[in-house]
Amino acid sequence: MGLTEKNEEEEEMNRRKEDDPEEAAAKESLSIEQIFASKEVPPWQKQVTIRALVVSFVLSILFTFIVMKLNLTTGIIPSLNVSAGLLGFFFIKTWTKLVQKSGMLKQPFTRQENTVIQTCVVASSGIAFSGGFGSYLFGMSEVVAKQSSEATSAKDIKNPALGWIIGFIFVVSFLGLFSVVPLRKIMIIDFKLTYPSGTATAHLINSFHTPQGAKLAKKQVRALGKFFSFSFLWGFFQWFFTAGDDCGFVSFPTFGLKAYENKFYFDFSATYVGVGMICPYLINISLLVGAILSWGIMWPLIDNKKGSWYSADLSPSSLHGLQGYKVFIAIAMILGDGLYNFLKVLSRTLLGLYKQLSKKDSGVVIPVAGNSSPQNTPSQSYDDQIRTQLFLKDQIPLWLAIAGYVTIAIISAATLPHIFHQLKWYYIVVIYIIAPPLAFCNAYGCGLTDWSLASTYGKLAIFTIGAWAGASQGGVLAGLAACGVMMNIVSTASDLMQDFKTGYMTLASPRSMFVSQIIGTAMGCVISPCVFWLFYKAFNGLGTPDSEYPAPYALVYRNMSILGVQGFSALPKHCLTLCYVFFIAAVVINGIRDAVGKKRASYIPLPMAMAIPFYLGSYFAIDMCVGSFILYVWGKLNKAKADAFGPAVASGLICGDGIWTLPSSILALAGVNPPICMKFLSRGTNVKVDGFLAS
Amino acid sequence: MGLTEKNEEEEEMNRRKEDDPEEAAAKESLSIEQIFASKEVPPWQKQVTIRALVVSFVLSILFTFIVMKLNLTTGIIPSLNVSAGLLGFFFIKTWTKLVQKSGMLKQPFTRQENTVIQTCVVASSGIAFSGGFGSYLFGMSEVVAKQSSEATSAKDIKNPALGWIIGFIFVVSFLGLFSVVPLRKIMIIDFKLTYPSGTATAHLINSFHTPQGAKLAKKQVRALGKFFSFSFLWGFFQWFFTAGDDCGFVSFPTFGLKAYENKFYFDFSATYVGVGMICPYLINISLLVGAILSWGIMWPLIDNKKGSWYSADLSPSSLHGLQGYKVFIAIAMILGDGLYNFLKVLSRTLLGLYKQLSKKDSGVVIPVAGNSSPQNTPSQSYDDQIRTQLFLKDQIPLWLAIAGYVTIAIISAATLPHIFHQLKWYYIVVIYIIAPPLAFCNAYGCGLTDWSLASTYGKLAIFTIGAWAGASQGGVLAGLAACGVMMNIVSTASDLMQDFKTGYMTLASPRSMFVSQIIGTAMGCVISPCVFWLFYKAFNGLGTPDSEYPAPYALVYRNMSILGVQGFSALPKHCLTLCYVFFIAAVVINGIRDAVGKKRASYIPLPMAMAIPFYLGSYFAIDMCVGSFILYVWGKLNKAKADAFGPAVASGLICGDGIWTLPSSILALAGVNPPICMKFLSRGTNVKVDGFLAS
Repeated sequence: MGLTEKNEEEEEMNRRKEDDPEEAAAKESLSIEQIFASKEVPPWQKQVTIRALVVSFVLSILFTFIVMKLNLTTGIIPSLNVSAGLLGFFFIKTWTKLVQKSGMLKQPFTRQENTVIQTCVVASSGIAFSGGFGSYLFGMSEVVAKQSSEATSAKDIKNPALGWIIGFIFVVSFLGLFSVVPLRKIMIIDFKLTYPSGTATAHLINSFHTPQGAKLAKKQVRALGKFFSFSFLWGFFQWFFTAGDDCGFVSFPTFGLKAYENKFYFDFSATYVGVGMICPYLINISLLVGAILSWGIMWPLIDNKKGSWYSADLSPSSLHGLQGYKVFIAIAMILGDGLYNFLKVLSRTLLGLYKQLSKKDSGVVIPVAGNSSPQNTPSQSYDDQIRTQLFLKDQIPLWLAIAGYVTIAIISAATLPHIFHQLKWYYIVVIYIIAPPLAFCNAYGCGLTDWSLASTYGKLAIFTIGAWAGASQGGVLAGLAACGVMMNIVSTASDLMQDFKTGYMTLASPRSMFVSQIIGTAMGCVISPCVFWLFYKAFNGLGTPDSEYPAPYALVYRNMSILGVQGFSALPKHCLTLCYVFFIAAVVINGIRDAVGKKRASYIPLPMAMAIPFYLGSYFAIDMCVGSFILYVWGKLNKAKADAFGPAVASGLICGDGIWTLPSSILALAGVNPPICMKFLSRGTNVKVDGFLAS
Repeated sequence: MGLTEKNEEEEEMNRRKEDDPEEAAAKESLSIEQIFASKEVPPWQKQVTIRALVVSFVLSILFTFIVMKLNLTTGIIPSLNVSAGLLGFFFIKTWTKLVQKSGMLKQPFTRQENTVIQTCVVASSGIAFSGGFGSYLFGMSEVVAKQSSEATSAKDIKNPALGWIIGFIFVVSFLGLFSVVPLRKIMIIDFKLTYPSGTATAHLINSFHTPQGAKLAKKQVRALGKFFSFSFLWGFFQWFFTAGDDCGFVSFPTFGLKAYENKFYFDFSATYVGVGMICPYLINISLLVGAILSWGIMWPLIDNKKGSWYSADLSPSSLHGLQGYKVFIAIAMILGDGLYNFLKVLSRTLLGLYKQLSKKDSGVVIPVAGNSSPQNTPSQSYDDQIRTQLFLKDQIPLWLAIAGYVTIAIISAATLPHIFHQLKWYYIVVIYIIAPPLAFCNAYGCGLTDWSLASTYGKLAIFTIGAWAGASQGGVLAGLAACGVMMNIVSTASDLMQDFKTGYMTLASPRSMFVSQIIGTAMGCVISPCVFWLFYKAFNGLGTPDSEYPAPYALVYRNMSILGVQGFSALPKHCLTLCYVFFIAAVVINGIRDAVGKKRASYIPLPMAMAIPFYLGSYFAIDMCVGSFILYVWGKLNKAKADAFGPAVASGLICGDGIWTLPSSILALAGVNPPICMKFLSRGTNVKVDGFLAS
């Protein structure tokens, strides 16, 4: 899910942003660059300030914690751009205020500096996702391997260790950066691609730096702070009651014990209530529909076939039993959805490119996407003029990009086989030759549709490299590692192009953006593995199904790799048939969604979202629906306020709970355990326990 | 506490009411009766309508449930007059609207009818308090007797049974009514006593029937309804998790297990949060101070003396151990506070009477209390003129009152010894001779200070009659029964005089008020015992210290009676000394409160309120402080809204949770038990329990 989710939701964000009254007012009266005309744009060296990097570092740690927590619980990651923007603004504003009081302020806070922070944080926390700590990388570990009960020999396992993870991330993360840098002029200026998320972020940053915008931002920050504290304290309060498994609010059988057994309960997670407030209604409903379909209907039915469809004396976590149906049907649906969208975006990319090139031949550059509408072409032109001028001023030489890419590719091809013996150097070379065109495709597709297909390209690598290596040569691990290499390049490429779009619209220099991206990526390469390591050491049972951090995608990715290497032999009875059905269903549902038009499509659930609860159950879907419900009611009561403060409140809830995991993991590492267990027993059991305690 | 509490708080209510903008506006421009001049006052037979009685009956049941629940949990009973007023208005308004649509409305809804409902409900639900279901009457039972471990022989025990309770209540409740009826002209018209609660209720009813008032009332009813539903559903939700003792939200160790053992926790009770919102801040703080003083400091210290001050091998509920200190120190404080206030009110009563009579002799009637201020004497005079005219129109003949009193006294004296063999007929005759002057004193004092001393007069009866009867003659029970007889007369007298004041100010006929009071009292005589009986049968362990319904005052009253009969011999070591200290402290604190002036007195805790948590612990004090806190924050955010809707929200919380006890007791009677136990275990115990459950 991950990225696709992220983008879907950013699109929504974008839509909301465009409803912003200030934004609308600005559009009507003055063009944005006319408003900012009086403000000087500092040279690129002054855009990347020390204070910006310090703030970026602090925020990177915060967001890495949050993304890591989300990775390891459900794998659903909402866009944190708004919170990063708000918090970055807040930190620097406080900073400059303090320094101003001491009379030592040398440089005012500019929107270019804000963009640099944004870019740095996005680059850094992006690695927490693309590093695969909740998917391919953790899927190599023994904990996950044991659950899949196939390919558990030593050659198919690589347990996490801080050293090799940092090394691995370092050698693969910079490639994406260099691969798309030469293309930025084509994408942004010539093709005028939309990049909805990047545009939205730019709007946000621009609005912060107008006087009204700063006032609103201040209020939003206050709302964020309030809910941040609440969420943090709530996490702290909950902690006291979680001595032992199945203790505390996370195991609250809100709808009764029977429903709890089937994973229908509200788990009081501030994070997912916040995520639900950010994600569009459709995603939340899709999750719930998926949960009801699977845990409410299918799994109980399949459970009845125990002994006939699969052996009754298997352990409950065995993939040859019920667990197998859960995992593989989910994989089938994810692959079906992925394939459909891959083909869709690819065809649109090719079509767009074709049109673009044929127009270029005729000598006229016409915008492809709806970024500039005919009515306000004059003002747009003024903006574009200024922006283009500044975007082209600070160049990054082509030779630097190519030299960088080749150098890193060589280092990488030389290093990676030492980390993964199963990954031969020629696999890597092949990946690095195919990667740039794929990165281009992804960056282009993302610019058109805001839909990054990084995980789909990753899956492609799993199947191809896995099959090439073969089972006997440790193909399972080779596939997972190849997935990592591919995903990092492709995902970074689209992320960074979004950033360039933001920079273009805020007059930030491409050179300062590039430097900020490099620094951010370097930070991420250290921060993310360290944070993962903290989680790994602090929380027992990380990656096991019933633990606090089940890391569902780790098992999913590993099983895809096994599937790629070994074929379908491992599946239990009728499972393959069901997989076909759901694969086709995913394709068909997507087709229908595209066929009926946008309005009616909003009543048809998304197959990708439906598949997540297949494995996890519906508790987080219920949290997210609660978030949706809160936002809905709020919107009914006061639409303007809900629109302006909803994202801030949601960010507060997510950040507070996310940052609570820092002290909570430190407490766990220090061996401080919670004192109380809030336990839920059926009446019968309670009588027994009372008897036992009395004796 | 009970009544005194009730009145303190009504005073507060009254103060708030007078801040009401509408009220103020009305005062400034027109006198109230000028506003209502166009509206005809119906004859008294048309004021007591069938619909009013039906609504009164429904509301009586609702409020009896609430008062009974409060009686049996802590004994703190806030004024429900506002909710009764709101709900009465709402019911009849809905009724008339429905009937109007059907075209069959014969009579519009008048404020006189509203007053009749109010009077009927107050009379009826008042019996739930003065019937002593949480104090003297339940104190006779075996459950309570066992806890005090003194005087447990058959002659000192009378277990509740529906038959004799109804009989008892019937023969004692009507006496108060007849004893003060002849005095109403003197109190209301000649003496012009204030009766703050009655005046406040009249203001409320008058404001409802002005057009603006009706609009505000509608909004308030909506707020009440919303919180009513919330509170009801919350009670319902909580129920599911209370399978067994120490289960559910009521046992939530909010501040840790250690604090829970010392009764410091928030028990999520919507009722007491609502009660806290209605009670003045000072009461809530006093409760908390008392709780910290007792459970935080004194009990742990005394507990350390175990084995030295008292035998270590006593059961924890034995009154010869720690429990004894808790109960008797609380009694000492309550008696000290009671005595001080008794003397204070008595002296003011006598002084007031003396002034009144000496002025009457000189032929001029001058108002005593501040009901009419010099500035608006002309408009007041118009109001008074109209009101006096109507108040004197419908007379209740003096012979009827005297004949009623004597008849009932004879029936009562003949019947009561059959119910309580220990209560000889001559005790009763003596009580009935002393009672009317005491009833007059109480009604007069209440008119001046809004402070009813019913429970103090009851305690007086316990000690005098108990001592007279002596231990061998079952003096314990005789004392309790005498307390009941006395309390009913005295409490009814002051309540009904408040109603007459309300009637006077809303132009309701005294005759319709009297009829309504008789009907209300008769309803109460049946409803209250039945509701108590439902609680008694439905909830196991009613009256035991750690149960859901500990009925704390039952034990307190019984022990006062034992003390009166047997003297101080039963007390553990140093307990008597501590009792003296706290008795004197209560008197001194009250003295200081009166000496320093009203403003500074609001920082000195009330001894009566401090004494309640001595026995019960602080959980409800914490609930109430939460209520205070909510109201405080709300007031900071929006003063006008908090003032207008605070009481409605509080009433909603109290009523919703109160009425939930109806289905919950029916479920308990039907043998439907909650399915889940939410248990709180320490980490160590949890490990053991998990081991036990796994095996």
